[in-house]
Amino acid sequence: MLEALKAEVFKANLELPKHGLIKYTWGNVSAIDREAGLFVIKPSGVDYETMQASDMVVCDLDGNVVEGELNPSSDTPTHAVLYQAFPEIGGIVHTHSTWATIWAQAGLDVPAMGTTHADTFYGSVPCARFLTQEEIDRGYEAETGNVIVETFKARGLEPLEVPGVLLHGHGPFTWGKTANSAVMNAVVLDEVAKMNLFARELNHFADPLPQRILDKHYLRKHGKDAYYGQK
Amino acid sequence: MLEALKAEVFKANLELPKHGLIKYTWGNVSAIDREAGLFVIKPSGVDYETMQASDMVVCDLDGNVVEGELNPSSDTPTHAVLYQAFPEIGGIVHTHSTWATIWAQAGLDVPAMGTTHADTFYGSVPCARFLTQEEIDRGYEAETGNVIVETFKARGLEPLEVPGVLLHGHGPFTWGKTANSAVMNAVVLDEVAKMNLFARELNHFADPLPQRILDKHYLRKHGKDAYYGQK
Amino acid sequence: MLEALKAEVFKANLELPKHGLIKYTWGNVSAIDREAGLFVIKPSGVDYETMQASDMVVCDLDGNVVEGELNPSSDTPTHAVLYQAFPEIGGIVHTHSTWATIWAQAGLDVPAMGTTHADTFYGSVPCARFLTQEEIDRGYEAETGNVIVETFKARGLEPLEVPGVLLHGHGPFTWGKTANSAVMNAVVLDEVAKMNLFARELNHFADPLPQRILDKHYLRKHGKDAYYGQK
Amino acid sequence: MLEALKAEVFKANLELPKHGLIKYTWGNVSAIDREAGLFVIKPSGVDYETMQASDMVVCDLDGNVVEGELNPSSDTPTHAVLYQAFPEIGGIVHTHSTWATIWAQAGLDVPAMGTTHADTFYGSVPCARFLTQEEIDRGYEAETGNVIVETFKARGLEPLEVPGVLLHGHGPFTWGKTANSAVMNAVVLDEVAKMNLFARELNHFADPLPQRILDKHYLRKHGKDAYYGQK
Repeated sequence: MLEALKAEVFKANLELPKHGLIKYTWGNVSAIDREAGLFVIKPSGVDYETMQASDMVVCDLDGNVVEGELNPSSDTPTHAVLYQAFPEIGGIVHTHSTWATIWAQAGLDVPAMGTTHADTFYGSVPCARFLTQEEIDRGYEAETGNVIVETFKARGLEPLEVPGVLLHGHGPFTWGKTANSAVMNAVVLDEVAKMNLFARELNHFADPLPQRILDKHYLRKHGKDAYYGQK
Repeated sequence: MLEALKAEVFKANLELPKHGLIKYTWGNVSAIDREAGLFVIKPSGVDYETMQASDMVVCDLDGNVVEGELNPSSDTPTHAVLYQAFPEIGGIVHTHSTWATIWAQAGLDVPAMGTTHADTFYGSVPCARFLTQEEIDRGYEAETGNVIVETFKARGLEPLEVPGVLLHGHGPFTWGKTANSAVMNAVVLDEVAKMNLFARELNHFADPLPQRILDKHYLRKHGKDAYYGQK
Repeated sequence: MLEALKAEVFKANLELPKHGLIKYTWGNVSAIDREAGLFVIKPSGVDYETMQASDMVVCDLDGNVVEGELNPSSDTPTHAVLYQAFPEIGGIVHTHSTWATIWAQAGLDVPAMGTTHADTFYGSVPCARFLTQEEIDRGYEAETGNVIVETFKARGLEPLEVPGVLLHGHGPFTWGKTANSAVMNAVVLDEVAKMNLFARELNHFADPLPQRILDKHYLRKHGKDAYYGQK
Repeated sequence: MLEALKAEVFKANLELPKHGLIKYTWGNVSAIDREAGLFVIKPSGVDYETMQASDMVVCDLDGNVVEGELNPSSDTPTHAVLYQAFPEIGGIVHTHSTWATIWAQAGLDVPAMGTTHADTFYGSVPCARFLTQEEIDRGYEAETGNVIVETFKARGLEPLEVPGVLLHGHGPFTWGKTANSAVMNAVVLDEVAKMNLFARELNHFADPLPQRILDKHYLRKHGKDAYYGQK
């Protein structure tokens, strides 16, 4: 069942340690088959060195396991909520990557301070609020998804224009059209989080990127007349 | 004698350089056989590239060598004291890992500022005081163990809920049910020490994690109704 | 066509990830054949793991493709402008390397604070201004080259004495007599950017290198009586 | 001539990139045969990937080449002065390692803030002053050695108790009884430079290690009753 997607998700999970985004099993990648209405996700707490493509778990959009012998990632309900709320996305990544998590622990949005940011994120990456006790009691992981969706609605953000978010005190979620692009967005977010922190250390008055440069860089890669890369 | 435990301790020692926690021989791992009342520990100052499982040294709970041709780690009396005082632990790790040592040199407890911390440590990791001249004269390494035990008693901490400590001006000790979990706790402690330092740099007013999130994350992994990982 | 130069440029591009200067495809190297009036540059957005020497693109000094099936780097017009304005240079590198980009995001020149800097750069590495909206509209990449040239003229800098520049909010360009020396200058610039940032953190009053030490180090490697290295 | 020492020096030079202390050829290691009154040193500016043991250069204590076809390191006169002034040392290392160089650029002594430091350096590692114009004119590299010797005399330091120094605006020199121990001391100095910087960032009031702990750690490894390591 969904063997090709399992292979893709398995491979994308292996990219996380390769890019230094995770230690041990602290992360998960999923990808969805929109026609089938099912997504594939990493099992919970399985060692990356022994994990196989066939260990990936298939879930429906309510987060129920449809196929697989292992427990899916404990963050599965968050993924399910995001796939429901953001129909344009095809893959999701969660990590505790060092620099993005530092911003999450600081409780701050990551401003667009350079073109590395603008090439991927069209404006600040928001930091979503802590969950309330009621939300935790109702279902921590699903409500985490709801708080992300609430944040994007309140700020009027398009999920593919700003393909990531920080959770206060926790870490980043990123997404994209595919699992691979979600991983790449996780790499970019961690790198710009690092660069912005030290740019502000170096010059406490360093400004965000002017809007005209943000527009130019984002649109030359993602606009209708994009001319970056190969056709 | 205790060949399986020697192999486990040997392998756990090799995890230290692999995870970037030590340079040269600056670290040691031990594990205990509670029935035999004996623990196995790395020899002192032996190159990790030539060390073998058979070089591990067997000691009793007073820190005396029971088997082995090499001198045990000079920190052996600290391990012995901890095994005596904390009967629930099975493995101990000592390193001078960069970021945990930075907090030790700063003389500060590591507060729980994120869920990465809460997944492993149920609250702040304490920084124990410097030894007095009298304690140093009486036996530096054993008294180091006593100061750790004193710190946990004074603060009413459970060793398995907060499986680690900093020694002021020195570095971390971590422990766990096994040598492997003690190593993992050393990795987590170093990572959260790094993240917390920069989170506070970024936002001097960054708060510790709310108690409700700390509870949720610690208990979903370690509580009686834990649902993280595989059965 | 220019097969030897393609091989050189291909190999120099591979040095970028090897030295940790780039992630994914965020960088490009070119080199020029001055007699032919043509330069060779990396294609745009091609994975470094599958890229081959034969994928390199040949361009003329107006930035037009002369040979090659792939699109050249989107920064090609910047390279073309620099080759025209700086006839003494033979290779150019552009990256978003972490520490140089941090200074670019801070909008600050990198001062000569140590002999590591003085061995390669004869004085501060300048940070060029943001482009105006008019310049962006006229042609972002070519105008980026023009702003670099303007910066060197306004400050009276010799391109081979200060073989690099920062673009405000973007990142570094470096150059040299060859593609390889341009890569080496990119490595040096990133390293001194890192060292200077933390030297000022450590001592907010840390001074630039005295002129006499700057002279000595630069000239013993690059002056007419240079005595560093082999004949 | 001195083939065994050449092999030792060659191997010790390869340790520099392995431990992340240098990029390219920015460093050099030497070792002396005290009976012969000759030392062996790395050639200047030779790529570490192609360098061989037979490329090492033999020099006398005035820094003159006695055997070897390549130019010795341009820092050879500094090594010669140190071997003359410090008869107890057997090997010398010079690098521009990142964190030690940061302290050198800040112009500050590295205080003993932790036991990692105390295990190797018995007190602060001094930062030597800039050379004057007259000293530079007289012979930059030999005078660099003289300034180091002057610093140790003025402070009453024993070279083997504090086996290293920083040169203001430049970087560290370390030494030891052998080339290997000089390399190890370079690794320790870089690591404690990093840890001290961030310990002070974290707690601006962090104190140096109490004298009693400094004594205990230094002496249990290097005192007459040392009990660290194997016999």
